[in-house]
Amino acid sequence: MATSWSMGPGTLEVPLSLFAKNRSRLADKLKSGQVVVLQGGEDISHYDTDIEYVFRQESYFTWICGVREPGCYFALDVATRKAHLFIRRLPEDYEIWMGKLLSCDDFKKIYAVDEVHYVDELQSVLKSLNPETLLTLCGPNTDSGLTAKEAVFEGIDEFKVDNEILFPIIAELRVIKTPEEIEVLRYVCKVSSDAHKQVMLYAKPGRKEYQCESVFLDHCYRVGGCRHVSYTCICGSGHNGATLHYGHASAPNSKLIHDGDMCLFDMGGNYAGYAADITCSFPANGKFTEDQKLIYEAVLAGRDAVIREAKPGVLWTDMHLAANRAMLEHLKKGGLLQGDVEDMIANGIHGILQPHGLGHLLGLDVHDVGGYLPHCPPRPSGPLARLRTARPLLANMTLTIEPGCYFIPRLLDGAKNNPAQAKFFNWEKLDKFRGFGGVRIEDDVLITEAGVENLTFVPRTVAEIEEHMANGANFKGS
Amino acid sequence: MATSWSMGPGTLEVPLSLFAKNRSRLADKLKSGQVVVLQGGEDISHYDTDIEYVFRQESYFTWICGVREPGCYFALDVATRKAHLFIRRLPEDYEIWMGKLLSCDDFKKIYAVDEVHYVDELQSVLKSLNPETLLTLCGPNTDSGLTAKEAVFEGIDEFKVDNEILFPIIAELRVIKTPEEIEVLRYVCKVSSDAHKQVMLYAKPGRKEYQCESVFLDHCYRVGGCRHVSYTCICGSGHNGATLHYGHASAPNSKLIHDGDMCLFDMGGNYAGYAADITCSFPANGKFTEDQKLIYEAVLAGRDAVIREAKPGVLWTDMHLAANRAMLEHLKKGGLLQGDVEDMIANGIHGILQPHGLGHLLGLDVHDVGGYLPHCPPRPSGPLARLRTARPLLANMTLTIEPGCYFIPRLLDGAKNNPAQAKFFNWEKLDKFRGFGGVRIEDDVLITEAGVENLTFVPRTVAEIEEHMANGANFKGS
Repeated sequence: MATSWSMGPGTLEVPLSLFAKNRSRLADKLKSGQVVVLQGGEDISHYDTDIEYVFRQESYFTWICGVREPGCYFALDVATRKAHLFIRRLPEDYEIWMGKLLSCDDFKKIYAVDEVHYVDELQSVLKSLNPETLLTLCGPNTDSGLTAKEAVFEGIDEFKVDNEILFPIIAELRVIKTPEEIEVLRYVCKVSSDAHKQVMLYAKPGRKEYQCESVFLDHCYRVGGCRHVSYTCICGSGHNGATLHYGHASAPNSKLIHDGDMCLFDMGGNYAGYAADITCSFPANGKFTEDQKLIYEAVLAGRDAVIREAKPGVLWTDMHLAANRAMLEHLKKGGLLQGDVEDMIANGIHGILQPHGLGHLLGLDVHDVGGYLPHCPPRPSGPLARLRTARPLLANMTLTIEPGCYFIPRLLDGAKNNPAQAKFFNWEKLDKFRGFGGVRIEDDVLITEAGVENLTFVPRTVAEIEEHMANGANFKGS
Repeated sequence: MATSWSMGPGTLEVPLSLFAKNRSRLADKLKSGQVVVLQGGEDISHYDTDIEYVFRQESYFTWICGVREPGCYFALDVATRKAHLFIRRLPEDYEIWMGKLLSCDDFKKIYAVDEVHYVDELQSVLKSLNPETLLTLCGPNTDSGLTAKEAVFEGIDEFKVDNEILFPIIAELRVIKTPEEIEVLRYVCKVSSDAHKQVMLYAKPGRKEYQCESVFLDHCYRVGGCRHVSYTCICGSGHNGATLHYGHASAPNSKLIHDGDMCLFDMGGNYAGYAADITCSFPANGKFTEDQKLIYEAVLAGRDAVIREAKPGVLWTDMHLAANRAMLEHLKKGGLLQGDVEDMIANGIHGILQPHGLGHLLGLDVHDVGGYLPHCPPRPSGPLARLRTARPLLANMTLTIEPGCYFIPRLLDGAKNNPAQAKFFNWEKLDKFRGFGGVRIEDDVLITEAGVENLTFVPRTVAEIEEHMANGANFKGS
């Protein structure tokens, strides 16, 4: 029986007890007679071809059993606490094309589950468990507006199915991380931090944004065993730093980096399904100008305020405002803004400069589970509506803290034409920042009983960044 | 008006005339009154989250217009030969999150098409063209068994639609490459060849298979501008070389490479949608043993036979057999097989050692368009049924030539227990090869009027490979 999984020597051994503990926590919240049924992900082809995307498992399925194969189902019998995995019955010649044809017994050993059957036995095995109710997963992801895919199988109509009980329970369990999960997050954040450090050594004027992305991907995979990243890499230089989700196919990190550009690189690896999500902002040429330093240190002041103040019981909405306040205060000192900071907030100046929320839950998904679960505070109206959660913090939550300051032409023009907002800006100075792009500083943190443990290890102060980048000869690539 | 697209300095400028010529070739085969309507690909989320796979455009859509954005439609009016692109109407705040909000006029300039409208104008614009028939795409991909996605839109039922005329015509046009397409294939094969050469310098005992995959991906992207590869990298070492499609999520290139292993690495970049598909097989430690040399040179003899004999008019099935014959001949000389080679073929010995076909069409898809189009020779029965095409070759086809020799336990055991096959093997010698894995040599070639132009530039002979690998200090990475 295997006790762990890894990508080989030098990568983290993820204990299979991580998943067993998740199941046990879930069973504790449910009743005898209930059987949880989850359906895993399927392979996805490139259109009508026989080429497929590299499979990524659905996150609830990973959470409950860690199984990496497509086409599976999983059942947790609350009465016996037994874990039943259902796998594809594959043709014999699968072995020639796809690798060793694993038996049910092999799967049992690999994943340390109690029973393994074939998917075509799902109905009969579930019947034999004699459940009062099958619990399936159905609930909204408030980040995407999509719904978790409910398990369906031939013969499910012969059971009493409830698709409401499970979602809020399992989603909330995912929010609160176990020590085993925290170890995985710690690892993937460390690998991703190191990859960012490599990128900072590689990036320079004359290189293309996507070349930096490639260095990041290579470090995460080759050194850290992360085959996937958790989201499309955002590698904005210069004005592209003001495009919050830059990097997708229509804006594919393809600009040349110029001398004088700030780089805003938001990238995170994925290991065993768990996500990192880290942003570093730095001058492409390794030396901050006074203007770059002003914006950077304003954002850093926002980050520092949250790191200082976040702890169990504190509201995320308050943290968001604390970060914004610190940032505005710093920009005012720097002469970019004028007037009273509370007045600025009352007039939405923070939303002009940072149109996104402070951060989000982090775990198996980068925007983990959706921050507005049924039992949680609802999405605020007004300027705070962009926040991905409004929850009070709890110990063992993991989140991103990611304040930013951007010079977005549409938003600045809107503010300039709005007398209630225009008066807070020193336009002569501010207009020099058009084309600057933006700065974001994003850390992945664990909420502890005492406050915050930062899982991110990258150069953060101006001095640290300049020192790291001056040390460019140490880059381990070409 | 743009005239080309590239991933920046140092990468290939793909002329937009490539796509204009494709449209013109298509219009030449159709009639006035017909309007071709294609639907482009859509973004795909990771399950219920707001994270998406990096978008890959559908290949017929790329072929006709090269558009890289999701959610588009395209219409070609045969009467006027005008190219109409239909783009998403995006909300204004798209700009904040996703980048500059491009107007129809911007799209017109970027893709050099005649007219650009919004998707919600599709019905009215098509009506204004007053078509007799809309031609939509619907046809089988014989490699996958799937069907090309037919265009659908609100109001299509008000038109006369034909979904049979287009497929065989456009698929056949895709099979025969234009000089502009050949230039792109030449580039992506060169980038992929160089990436393989880097991998050969990097691979060594003690490294993991996926680390080699990472080096390949990094070279293709960072140096060649290929954000995608054309299929999941197959990085089999030792016994994994006998798993033909190794490398997927259930067999994720995670083995440690050992001294004495052969490596079989099948990987190809993708540029502007066009695919490379190259396999290199080499000893992990850089020096062939006599056994490794025997198998390698048998496969190379198969490859050489095809390179020598392939030319317009020749049947692909005959090329397959020519490769197999040369390979069996060599293995017989080496004492692994015995008896008459034609008898071996009559008894299916080639299918034991190489259970796959010689190769496939290559283009925008790695297994391009499906090799059994309606007007082509049908799939053979019997041992040749595995071939991906049975066509006679035509000038300006691009294909892979990929003979291989594998030691697959299930197939060898079957042969041993089958007296009609067992007698051809020298089992004492052959049993030493259990666990050897396999060798595949895969080139991407262009069929010319005279024969074959090889687009692949990697060390191929035993001497070339050993010399290249001895030169390991030149590897440009860590």
